[in-house]
Amino acid sequence: MADQAFVTLATTDNYAKGAMVLGKSLRNHSTSKKLVALIGPHISESSRAVLRKIYDEVRLVDVLDSGDAAHLAMMKRPDLGVTFTKLHCWTLTQYSKCVFMDADTLVLSNIDELFEREELSAAPDPGWPDCFNSGVFVFRPCNETYGKLLTACSENGSFDGNPKVHCFSFGFSSGGDQGVLNSFFSDWATADISKHLPFIYNLSSIAIYTYLPAFKQYGHDAKVVHFLGKVKPWDYSYDTASKTVKGQTQDAAMHPNFLQQWWELFSSKVLPLLKEEYGDQPFLSG
Amino acid sequence: MADQAFVTLATTDNYAKGAMVLGKSLRNHSTSKKLVALIGPHISESSRAVLRKIYDEVRLVDVLDSGDAAHLAMMKRPDLGVTFTKLHCWTLTQYSKCVFMDADTLVLSNIDELFEREELSAAPDPGWPDCFNSGVFVFRPCNETYGKLLTACSENGSFDGNPKVHCFSFGFSSGGDQGVLNSFFSDWATADISKHLPFIYNLSSIAIYTYLPAFKQYGHDAKVVHFLGKVKPWDYSYDTASKTVKGQTQDAAMHPNFLQQWWELFSSKVLPLLKEEYGDQPFLSG
Ligand SMILES: O=c1ccn([C@@H]2O[C@H](COP(=O)(O)OP(=O)(O)O)[C@@H](O)[C@H]2O)c(=O)[nH]1
Ligand SMILES: O=c1ccn([C@@H]2O[C@H](COP(=O)(O)OP(=O)(O)O)[C@@H](O)[C@H]2O)c(=O)[nH]1
Ligand SMILES: [Mn+2]
Ligand SMILES: [Mn+2]
Repeated sequence: MADQAFVTLATTDNYAKGAMVLGKSLRNHSTSKKLVALIGPHISESSRAVLRKIYDEVRLVDVLDSGDAAHLAMMKRPDLGVTFTKLHCWTLTQYSKCVFMDADTLVLSNIDELFEREELSAAPDPGWPDCFNSGVFVFRPCNETYGKLLTACSENGSFDGNPKVHCFSFGFSSGGDQGVLNSFFSDWATADISKHLPFIYNLSSIAIYTYLPAFKQYGHDAKVVHFLGKVKPWDYSYDTASKTVKGQTQDAAMHPNFLQQWWELFSSKVLPLLKEEYGDQPFLSG
Repeated sequence: MADQAFVTLATTDNYAKGAMVLGKSLRNHSTSKKLVALIGPHISESSRAVLRKIYDEVRLVDVLDSGDAAHLAMMKRPDLGVTFTKLHCWTLTQYSKCVFMDADTLVLSNIDELFEREELSAAPDPGWPDCFNSGVFVFRPCNETYGKLLTACSENGSFDGNPKVHCFSFGFSSGGDQGVLNSFFSDWATADISKHLPFIYNLSSIAIYTYLPAFKQYGHDAKVVHFLGKVKPWDYSYDTASKTVKGQTQDAAMHPNFLQQWWELFSSKVLPLLKEEYGDQPFLSG
C-alpha cells in the first residue's frame, strides 16, 4: 500500500551507510511499501544522493533549525539529541502506518506482514525483556502523538528512573530513544500480546554471540538482524577479493555470517552507487 | 490458602541446600502458602530431615522405581532425567494451584500475588525472550496435564528442534525442562499477556552481571533472584567471621549482594539445622 512505509534514520555518514544497506535489503526482498529515510543536517550531499537512489523519500530533519516544539524540547534535554530526530517519524502523516527500523538492521526476508500489527508493536529487548527494543517498531504517524512524545521528553527529567518502566537500553542507543519510547508506551509489557513482535524480527547480534547454540538452531528463521551495540558493521573492514570481513573478533568468527551478508550487500549494491557520487575513494574500512 | 503451594525440586544434596535457603526466604517473607519439596532418591536422610523442618511436605519422587508412565517415558528419553522428576509437580493434585521455583532461586519479598495468575505463567528468558524461563512458573496440578506432558516428552524426539518454538535454555538446566515446557505451552509468547510475569519475578543473575547499569537502577525492585547458570551459590565458600563470600570472580564482585544474601540466610538459618542433623561438619564451601 502506498500509504505505508518503512522508515529509518541517519544523522551521520556512517549510519547513512547502514541505511543504504537496510534499504537495499528491503528492496531485495520485494517490499511493496515505500521507503523513507530521515536524515540529520550533517549528512553529506553525496550520501544524500545515494540515499535518494534507494529510498522513495529522503527527508531532512533539522531539529536545531526547526524553531518548533522539538527545538524547545531539545533545549531542555540536549542529552536526548538523536532521539528528537527519531521522534520526527511520527510527523510522517502522509502514511497511515509505518515500521521504523534502526540503520543498523538488515532484512533477511520479506517482512511486509509487520504492517498487520498496531502501534506500538516491537520485540522484547534481550537482557531486559520487560522492555521492547526500539530498533524495530510499528507506529502510526500522528501529530498529536508527536506532540505528546515531545512534551513527555521535555517534562520528564529522567526516563530511565521512571519506576513504571523497568527498562534499560541493552545497547548504546546514543539518543536514549529506547528509554523514552518504553516510558511513553509503558503498557507494552502488560497490555496486548499482539504488540509483542516475535524475536526473529529484531534478532540482536549480541544475543547471537551469547546464545550461539540457540542461534544455530533458529538462526535460519531470523527475519531481521540488528547489529546492536558499540561496534557496527561499517566499523569493520572488508576484502572484496576474498570476500571476507577483516578485523573480526573471536566472537565474530563464531558468529554466523550476518556480518558477511551485510558487507556482501554493501560491496555489491551500495558501493557502486557511492562511487558514482564520491568517485574512487576507499570505502571498504571503518 | 491451604490448597495453594510453592513447590521446588532437589535431586542432589547440593540442590537441597538451595531448596533450604529458598524455603527459608519464602518463610521470612511470611508466605501464607504451603511449601512443598520434591526430592529424588539420592538425597541423604539428613538433608531430608532438614527439608522437613522447613517445608510442609517433602515428597520423594523416584521415577526409576515408579513403574508408571513416567518410568516408561524415562526409558525412551534417559537424557531428560531430572525433567521427569520436575514434571511430577503436576501430580500434586491436593493443591488447586502452585508456583514452581527452581532450587537456585531466592525470594526477596512476599510474592503470594503470583497465585492470582493462571497456568502457565512465567517470566521471559533473557537472551531468548520468546521463551519463558522455567525457573519460576505458575501451574495447576492435574493428572491429565501430567499424562500429556509425559506423552509429549516421550513422543517428541527433539523438543529443541520444534519449529513452533524458538526456544533455548539460556542456562544449563540439566534436564532440559525449559525446552519441554516451552514446547508444551507453546502459545505462551503469543496468546495471553497476563501469563507473562514481570521480569522482577525471575531476575537471572546472568542478566545482572551483563546489564549492571539496569540492575543498579531496578535491582531494588527485584522480587526473585535466579542464580541461573553453571556456578551456583553453594559452589562458593563463605567466611562467617567476615561475612564475605570467597572465590568471587570479578563479575561477582561487581554483582550486587544477592550472593551475599544467599549465604547470610544459609549461614544464619540453614546451617544450624544442618548441624543438628549432620553434626559439626564443614558446610561453608562448595
Ligand atoms: O549518531 C547516531 C546514532 C544513532 N542514529 C540512529 O539511531 C539508531 C539507534 O542507535 P544505535 O543503532 O547506534 O543504537 P543500538 O541499537 O546499538 O542501541 C541508529 O540505528 C540510527 O538509525 C543516528 O542516526 N546517528
Ligand atoms: O542435578 C539437578 C539439576 C537440577 N535440579 C533441579 O532443577 C532445577 C533446574 O536446574 P538448574 O537450576 O541447575 O538450571 P538453570 O536454572 O541454571 O538453567 C534446579 O534449580 C533444581 O530445582 C536438581 O534437583 N538436580
Ligand atoms: Mn540499533
Ligand atoms: Mn535454575
